[in-house]
Amino acid sequence: MGYTKDDELAINTIRILAVDATSKANSGHPGAPMGLAPAAHVLFNKFLSFNPKSSSWINRDRFVLSNGHGCLLQYCLLHLFGYDLSLDDIKNFRQIDSKTPGHPEMGDTDGIEVTTGPLGQGFANAVGLAIAQANAAAEFNQDGFDIITNYTYAIFGDGCAMEGVASEAASTAGHLQLGNLIMIYDDNHISIDGDTNCQFTEDVLKRFDAYGWHIQHVEEGNTDLEGIEAAIAKAKEVKDKPSVIKVTTTIGYGSKLQGTGGVHGNALKEDDAEQIKEKFGFNPKEHFVVPQKVYELYSKRAAEGAAVEEKWNQLLEKYGQQHKELHAELLRRQAQKLPEGWEKKLPTYKPSDKANASRKLSEAVLEAIHEVLPELIGGSADLTGSNNTRWKNATDFQPPSTGLGKWSGRYIRYGVREHSMGAIMNGISAYGLHIPFGGTFLNFVSYAAGAVRLSSLSHERVIWVATHDSIGLGEDGPTHQPIETLAHFRALPNMMVWRPADGNETSAAYYMALTSTKTPSILALTRQNLPQLENSTIAHAIKGGYTVIEAESADITLVSTGSEVSLCVDTVKLLKDKHNLTARVVSLPCWEIFDAQDKEYRLSILPDGIPSLSVEVMSTLGWERYSHEQFGLNRFGASGPYKEVYKKFEFTPEGVAKRAVATVDFYKGVKPRSPVNRAFQQLI
Amino acid sequence: MGYTKDDELAINTIRILAVDATSKANSGHPGAPMGLAPAAHVLFNKFLSFNPKSSSWINRDRFVLSNGHGCLLQYCLLHLFGYDLSLDDIKNFRQIDSKTPGHPEMGDTDGIEVTTGPLGQGFANAVGLAIAQANAAAEFNQDGFDIITNYTYAIFGDGCAMEGVASEAASTAGHLQLGNLIMIYDDNHISIDGDTNCQFTEDVLKRFDAYGWHIQHVEEGNTDLEGIEAAIAKAKEVKDKPSVIKVTTTIGYGSKLQGTGGVHGNALKEDDAEQIKEKFGFNPKEHFVVPQKVYELYSKRAAEGAAVEEKWNQLLEKYGQQHKELHAELLRRQAQKLPEGWEKKLPTYKPSDKANASRKLSEAVLEAIHEVLPELIGGSADLTGSNNTRWKNATDFQPPSTGLGKWSGRYIRYGVREHSMGAIMNGISAYGLHIPFGGTFLNFVSYAAGAVRLSSLSHERVIWVATHDSIGLGEDGPTHQPIETLAHFRALPNMMVWRPADGNETSAAYYMALTSTKTPSILALTRQNLPQLENSTIAHAIKGGYTVIEAESADITLVSTGSEVSLCVDTVKLLKDKHNLTARVVSLPCWEIFDAQDKEYRLSILPDGIPSLSVEVMSTLGWERYSHEQFGLNRFGASGPYKEVYKKFEFTPEGVAKRAVATVDFYKGVKPRSPVNRAFQQLI
Ligand SMILES: [Ca+2]
Ligand SMILES: [Ca+2]
Repeated sequence: MGYTKDDELAINTIRILAVDATSKANSGHPGAPMGLAPAAHVLFNKFLSFNPKSSSWINRDRFVLSNGHGCLLQYCLLHLFGYDLSLDDIKNFRQIDSKTPGHPEMGDTDGIEVTTGPLGQGFANAVGLAIAQANAAAEFNQDGFDIITNYTYAIFGDGCAMEGVASEAASTAGHLQLGNLIMIYDDNHISIDGDTNCQFTEDVLKRFDAYGWHIQHVEEGNTDLEGIEAAIAKAKEVKDKPSVIKVTTTIGYGSKLQGTGGVHGNALKEDDAEQIKEKFGFNPKEHFVVPQKVYELYSKRAAEGAAVEEKWNQLLEKYGQQHKELHAELLRRQAQKLPEGWEKKLPTYKPSDKANASRKLSEAVLEAIHEVLPELIGGSADLTGSNNTRWKNATDFQPPSTGLGKWSGRYIRYGVREHSMGAIMNGISAYGLHIPFGGTFLNFVSYAAGAVRLSSLSHERVIWVATHDSIGLGEDGPTHQPIETLAHFRALPNMMVWRPADGNETSAAYYMALTSTKTPSILALTRQNLPQLENSTIAHAIKGGYTVIEAESADITLVSTGSEVSLCVDTVKLLKDKHNLTARVVSLPCWEIFDAQDKEYRLSILPDGIPSLSVEVMSTLGWERYSHEQFGLNRFGASGPYKEVYKKFEFTPEGVAKRAVATVDFYKGVKPRSPVNRAFQQLI
Repeated sequence: MGYTKDDELAINTIRILAVDATSKANSGHPGAPMGLAPAAHVLFNKFLSFNPKSSSWINRDRFVLSNGHGCLLQYCLLHLFGYDLSLDDIKNFRQIDSKTPGHPEMGDTDGIEVTTGPLGQGFANAVGLAIAQANAAAEFNQDGFDIITNYTYAIFGDGCAMEGVASEAASTAGHLQLGNLIMIYDDNHISIDGDTNCQFTEDVLKRFDAYGWHIQHVEEGNTDLEGIEAAIAKAKEVKDKPSVIKVTTTIGYGSKLQGTGGVHGNALKEDDAEQIKEKFGFNPKEHFVVPQKVYELYSKRAAEGAAVEEKWNQLLEKYGQQHKELHAELLRRQAQKLPEGWEKKLPTYKPSDKANASRKLSEAVLEAIHEVLPELIGGSADLTGSNNTRWKNATDFQPPSTGLGKWSGRYIRYGVREHSMGAIMNGISAYGLHIPFGGTFLNFVSYAAGAVRLSSLSHERVIWVATHDSIGLGEDGPTHQPIETLAHFRALPNMMVWRPADGNETSAAYYMALTSTKTPSILALTRQNLPQLENSTIAHAIKGGYTVIEAESADITLVSTGSEVSLCVDTVKLLKDKHNLTARVVSLPCWEIFDAQDKEYRLSILPDGIPSLSVEVMSTLGWERYSHEQFGLNRFGASGPYKEVYKKFEFTPEGVAKRAVATVDFYKGVKPRSPVNRAFQQLI
């Protein structure tokens, strides 16, 4: 304890930098950084274990600013402590290609752990970071070698507290007894619509108590540095519960408009900025001033952090001598390298092998690879038996006191909480030692759209095992049958959407999902059985598209994915026998990967001069990119046994053939250009 | 009170019907109906006010089964009480085109209020139904005329309790003190993954207490009919809080597997089904047996309900004499008819009118029409000032005790809870007297994807005011800039996605959204100013697409939406001056509506023989339907002042012209068919 004028100076420097940066950008959110500066100062200067010169040190404490609109708070701290972020970077706040975008983006800025801003996400990411820590600690720590000991700290505001994704994650964290997770709730009574009285009057601490969290309240969050410190220290002592500390603050502390919505999302007026500087003993006419004392105070802390890492490095070296294999594993996983030869474990299939549902083929992959890939950690949003996500001898990731599992367990019971599952997976991936996967029905990946988008934007290798991928799920009906889902995620940049047609394609999907370290994947898998295709191999399928049935002088190309590829294969014979038409069949399990192949390859699969028809039992949106005509389902499905549902919508050889004939007729006398041929390159 | 053998018989009949129906379908969820039959029996037979012969009576109590997979519970009750649902319909459970789909779908089945199954949705729908009731009561009730007095009852299970959307809605309901809302929590300790101990160990009642709900617990939910009745009666007395009654039940009560996950989602084995029938005094070899006594018991209750409605009808008749205008309004709104001439209030613009952001043009519409359309009830997910959703003299919908508004207020503070806002809007719409709208950033409509999908599936007239619709929002950056969002919702059946280019198009979007009684809408609106276009009129825009600039012997058609239409207009001159190319410009603000026009019209807008280029600052996915080449953004955006962001991605007249020239070159010597010309009709 023992806070001095220097602490106050540091806190006020952060506040004023936030004022100056939002004023210069004429955009942004000064209020949260100004209110949170005291709590953040105490957290960073007294507790957070980090080395600004080594921001990827694996045992660093993780810090997440879930109310990402307050990012200047974090940018200022990163700069002041000596991360690779200059004062000029702060001055470039919210400018094109700066290191200081409007919300924190992982990858753009040294020291940013996860991308936040979309409210509630950071909260759930922090739960994921804490899960990853607990699991890694159980796996890697040995007697005398506490290699993985970090805490995860997060700050969240009213907005995050209102979001369902955070509620879900909070319930999960309470169940999991994550004692390594400490959150500060910025209770400033303001959100964009004004006083939270108008919409958010619940008792937040009581709610967290109900979830099983340890709860505390610091009433004078603007000034009571000792109180904040004591609360964090207490939270660290509680090992069997996550902790939340409600810190009551004044948004825009120091502004004439403090405590009102007026300081939330707009730069302050010039006279207001000047009076704040004056009030805090700064020159009202100067901008972006950092007193040398503040740099000194913080560099002292940074040096302590560097020393802690140095000591840890020595421990790690000894660990490397005494626990050679674990040490090698830790380095391998940190480097995101998969073990040599792991891919030989992937199941392969011959056309004579039995038909199987791709959800079960996915299960076979997990069964085959989980031992060689200990970084795989996954679960399901309460659909384990339907998603087939659990290998036979899996151990649950559970607090040992429950008697249901261990910290080293690799199967996570996410509960019926798809959105937080997605955001928790982002956090697990961001920790740096795991590859998370999560199961739900494809239709309910949409519940998690907010998190899925951030997997893509922040380049997290997250895998969705999305079963029951179409009307082929049958009786559950339209409420559960995806129509728009694949179009949605195909339109999302940096997302691999896979819809494998058989066993080899399923293995290929996993191969690409696991080896693409910067790209998340959604594997759309069937409930119903699929035959093993001719010409399907892992090597073919990892190109994203290939020819299943080739034919000389074909009249038409049928291009399809998943369960409809074998339907197209069945149609070929009918077209020949009944209509004397020759059809080729192309499987296109992943557009994103197919698009990445060279043009020559793509044209060999979708050649010029042959009309093509796409066949997929969902929205046709986007299929115009790969086909001249489209057979799909631009309406909702139906409840019934799946074969009858297919029949109702004419997804039968006869129904496909009818449309193939119409397509051939329509293009009679025209040699259409391949859809692969374009006038210019897309911006990607 | 005073329960007899007849009550027990009724309860067991429901249980056995659920067993028989799932067995016949060999699919479905017997467990929940078997466990919930006692609570549902008490609720329906003692409390629920309804007339099975008049299921659209406006003052009926609403019942929502949020755990929709337990729908046989509801189907059986509807049949037994005499709704238009026969025993044969029950036998057709989960069959194609039956009235008894795998999850309850509003519109398919008499007496089903809302579509449930996707977990958490029904819970939030019920909050919406209660909001609508409270608002309508305040508006229509007069001294001596309690016309609108109904309660909303809902049942939810562990799955719903885990979903964030339900948590959000629960917080909102607590804040709003909805005393007319009573929920039963089916505490059976089982979800699909087994005992809830593995993932859901929070204290649910304490959590609801934190939200401000009245809480009760009935411990013997399988047998304690008096306890259930007393709890519901008590809940009805609590007028200033929503109520939740935790009823501890045994899933699959009566089965050999009762209390386990084994009875959740599968039909029972034959011997198990037989022993249950024996246990409950039924013939083990007979199926679908309903004792006459049960029909009698329930028809007595149904007759009471009919009498209540008859009395109400008499009251309504008197009301019509004494409050003629209100009476006429009530009937008009119930018929979903807008008042004569309302559309004359829609703002119109001339090209000389000032440039304006479409979010402000939307505000102008709301300002202009809110008085003539009292059924409009809306709000924002804590972005009121950004979404411009609040007309100047609006009153908040708030409990009067807060001093912040009234029950008759029409502006709802949804909080940062987009998903529940969507689901609550579905409930408000389903009540039958309102048109709900809700504001958030377009990017965060994705948080509500689960609810948006159900608006479409269940034909609810819900309007999303989705501002900040693109990279044009500028500084907030990629975390907030939609890329995939329009593709997602364009792929959703029965959803109108509007992206208006100016004032008249914005008015047109509202016109269509308000008059399409069975279709929800998303209005994608800009943050930045847009000029008023030549040739833009409401009459043109309500066709979904029209020609903004026509030209004889054009070299190219530029087809676009929203903020990029005026960019295309600017490009026309550049193309002429610099490249001697003649361009037409087409605005396509709503694909869904354009697709509904006749082919002749569509071909007049997108004619044969002219190559076309689409221009929209987001994913190009789907634009291949309306253009030969596409200029878009198949990557994430950037944080910076919006004009610079546009420039970075070449969305400038020069950037568009470059691609237009490439398109014209690419199609030199080819007279391409219009994309409107297709080989066959889509299934819609
Ligand atoms: Ca706040
Ligand atoms: Ca349950």
